[in-house]
Amino acid sequence: MKKQQLKIVKIGGNIIDDEVVLKEFLSSFAQLKGPKILVHGGGKLATRLAEKMNIPVKMIDGRRITDAETLELITMVYAGKINKNIVAQLQANQCNTIGFSGADGNTIIAKKRPVKQIDYGFVGDIVKVEVNVINVLLINNLTISFCAISHDAKGQLLNTNADTIASELSIALSKDYEVALYYCFEKNGVLKNVEDSDSVIEEINTKQYQQLKKDGIIYEGMIPKLDNCFYALSKGVQHIKIGKAEMLFNTNTKHTTVRK
Amino acid sequence: MKKQQLKIVKIGGNIIDDEVVLKEFLSSFAQLKGPKILVHGGGKLATRLAEKMNIPVKMIDGRRITDAETLELITMVYAGKINKNIVAQLQANQCNTIGFSGADGNTIIAKKRPVKQIDYGFVGDIVKVEVNVINVLLINNLTISFCAISHDAKGQLLNTNADTIASELSIALSKDYEVALYYCFEKNGVLKNVEDSDSVIEEINTKQYQQLKKDGIIYEGMIPKLDNCFYALSKGVQHIKIGKAEMLFNTNTKHTTVRK
Repeated sequence: MKKQQLKIVKIGGNIIDDEVVLKEFLSSFAQLKGPKILVHGGGKLATRLAEKMNIPVKMIDGRRITDAETLELITMVYAGKINKNIVAQLQANQCNTIGFSGADGNTIIAKKRPVKQIDYGFVGDIVKVEVNVINVLLINNLTISFCAISHDAKGQLLNTNADTIASELSIALSKDYEVALYYCFEKNGVLKNVEDSDSVIEEINTKQYQQLKKDGIIYEGMIPKLDNCFYALSKGVQHIKIGKAEMLFNTNTKHTTVRK
Repeated sequence: MKKQQLKIVKIGGNIIDDEVVLKEFLSSFAQLKGPKILVHGGGKLATRLAEKMNIPVKMIDGRRITDAETLELITMVYAGKINKNIVAQLQANQCNTIGFSGADGNTIIAKKRPVKQIDYGFVGDIVKVEVNVINVLLINNLTISFCAISHDAKGQLLNTNADTIASELSIALSKDYEVALYYCFEKNGVLKNVEDSDSVIEEINTKQYQQLKKDGIIYEGMIPKLDNCFYALSKGVQHIKIGKAEMLFNTNTKHTTVRK
């Protein structure tokens, strides 16, 4: 039997940080047919609030160091403010949604990252995704909105990258569904020339990726993003697209399709 | 057919504000047999955080005035920090739980309180409880933990009293379940003499309540609490008990049973 399609959509700061853009996105997202899951990052809100509360933001190599105070802060911002506002707005668009952290329904179980050179603090590397509860909700026509928080199943919440949550959810759900994973960000996709927003690479596979990396055309932030994609494809995720959120609602929108 | 019992347990500041007490409570709550729902207030955390962020706390007649800034704050504290920590700890005790606001699953729909003498701000009076999603979760052996936030189904989150959320949930679910509603607070129940913690009134009905109010034995904070109880009983809730949380785990613990 052909598996049913499931859309898993990851959105980031360019949508979350702009109230008008977020509202418009959610109104379109609500109209998408079939089972769907939203995964959202935290945007700049956590940083802004940290300043307000005089919590110093600690970053090493572009990664936030999550001490106890910072974990408390992101739990409030991601799982509280952002997540519940997304849920309320989806409800206003007749899209019945439940907001989740990875602790809810015991869905995303992670392990606190071991301390080596760097102590990342309360950062979780995912060890297991439990699909039972997710399946119950999807079958009952409920949408799930995940924030970027996992737990260790021993009572500790952990900070986990939203891209990784989206890919690990996609991998786990690809057994039961034909998953289409959409990474939405501020660009039209993977670009040949970062200066030219029209220079979208419409399709990219592992071999081409290796070459483009070697040639220095793909670099910096795109590398972990694409590594994540190829890993997900190798683990069974059926479709992955990268681009602006418009690609979800208008098939003519340029974007990058990532293939094995 | 006899209805299945459902326990709905409301906890407040005396449990939430003390990490050790909360942990102990949740470990016992997790062991309770049968379907169950937890409803939690906000405790003193929101007030403490408001001070840290220089958000003035506005109270009129003991009621918090919820301006936009305060709503943002309590959404972070109630739905974020408190709710997700409760969920994580229940998971650690093998009690599979999902944390809810009233926006999640479109469960608690409220109307922003109309402005008369006082503008309460973003405070919601409940107009409807939707049980569909709650029933799906309970049937699947999932526990729900509600924070004291509702929504207007048009995209606006609202601040709603946790006691009221507990009683309105109980009323709506009393059609399908034999509901036992437990109001846990810092006292052993309704007391004849507030100075004497052993002077528990073990049973109270509407007639006795009227008399005790007239005699000035029941006053202040107990009045809205008991009004809430008698209202819930009149609307079909089967059992209501008031006392310390221990009453849930040890049947010998003194408490007050409220009857019609």
